[in-house]
Amino acid sequence: MTDRHRDKAIARLRRIEGQVRGIQRMLEEGRYCVDILTQTSAVVAALHGVEDLVMENHLNTCVAEAMKSDDPAEKAEKVEEVMNVITKFRKHG
Amino acid sequence: MTDRHRDKAIARLRRIEGQVRGIQRMLEEGRYCVDILTQTSAVVAALHGVEDLVMENHLNTCVAEAMKSDDPAEKAEKVEEVMNVITKFRKHG
Amino acid sequence: MTDRHRDKAIARLRRIEGQVRGIQRMLEEGRYCVDILTQTSAVVAALHGVEDLVMENHLNTCVAEAMKSDDPAEKAEKVEEVMNVITKFRKHG
Amino acid sequence: MTDRHRDKAIARLRRIEGQVRGIQRMLEEGRYCVDILTQTSAVVAALHGVEDLVMENHLNTCVAEAMKSDDPAEKAEKVEEVMNVITKFRKHG
Repeated sequence: MTDRHRDKAIARLRRIEGQVRGIQRMLEEGRYCVDILTQTSAVVAALHGVEDLVMENHLNTCVAEAMKSDDPAEKAEKVEEVMNVITKFRKHG
Repeated sequence: MTDRHRDKAIARLRRIEGQVRGIQRMLEEGRYCVDILTQTSAVVAALHGVEDLVMENHLNTCVAEAMKSDDPAEKAEKVEEVMNVITKFRKHG
Repeated sequence: MTDRHRDKAIARLRRIEGQVRGIQRMLEEGRYCVDILTQTSAVVAALHGVEDLVMENHLNTCVAEAMKSDDPAEKAEKVEEVMNVITKFRKHG
Repeated sequence: MTDRHRDKAIARLRRIEGQVRGIQRMLEEGRYCVDILTQTSAVVAALHGVEDLVMENHLNTCVAEAMKSDDPAEKAEKVEEVMNVITKFRKHG
């Protein structure tokens, strides 16, 4: 992963950590359920942003490398991995 | 929200906080992209678990109350709120 | 379900049927994968539109009725049903 | 797309078409909302199955080709396309 991408992802995760703590406080303060769900949705969206950064990097590096290989098994393995990740994205949102 | 539900949700969010920190470490250590994405997916799934707790509570309390009301506007408002939350669930996974 | 809602949902499903046939044609004509995926995504979005119509109707009728009941088991059953639907929405997008 | 993959995708879409017609009938017959939603979820899941077939084919052919190219712009374009598809998958489930 390029340093720039990695630093960006880490910075976002740090912000996400703060948001998760914020939701704990909202629960402790007895805030309205719908407001809490708006916040959890925002955190999920932010996590997807991190996932996109990591996924884009993965396609540009590991997958790109494997595709240049003459070994069909290596290519097949990478495609399967990407498909598994996409399935996970769907299942867990 | 019942105390038991709230405490459960807070405990889960604390664990999620730790998981988010763990992903930061994985990035710093240059771990494999697909392993990182497996972890982010696990965190998203855990957040959905919290959302389900909050949503179930919301239906059992606020929505149940509103449905008993004779004021159709109050009922319509609650249904619209629930539909908005469902739309958010879909959009952000 | 009100007649208006039902007719709207049926009209949309008829349009979706046509879109699904269109995707079959795209495949037969050997169209570009990404264009096909854009179409499948549009159909999924259209199906979610139908789901929202049905869900909104369900909340306004069956769920609203159950919430007025004095039988806690009936209320619990409806909430569980709604939660199951939400879980399905998440899993299958 | 290989003939085998294409035929499989077309066969599935034909089945999906029948399922969509079945949901129209359920609505006309005034069937229970939750049963209808179970069916729409099944159709969405079936569409995702088609999307996976098309996506896998896309990665194995167009993306694999582009990755072998020496033109960084061509590679970047394919990666961007895949990322856009993933975003659509998330948004529309």
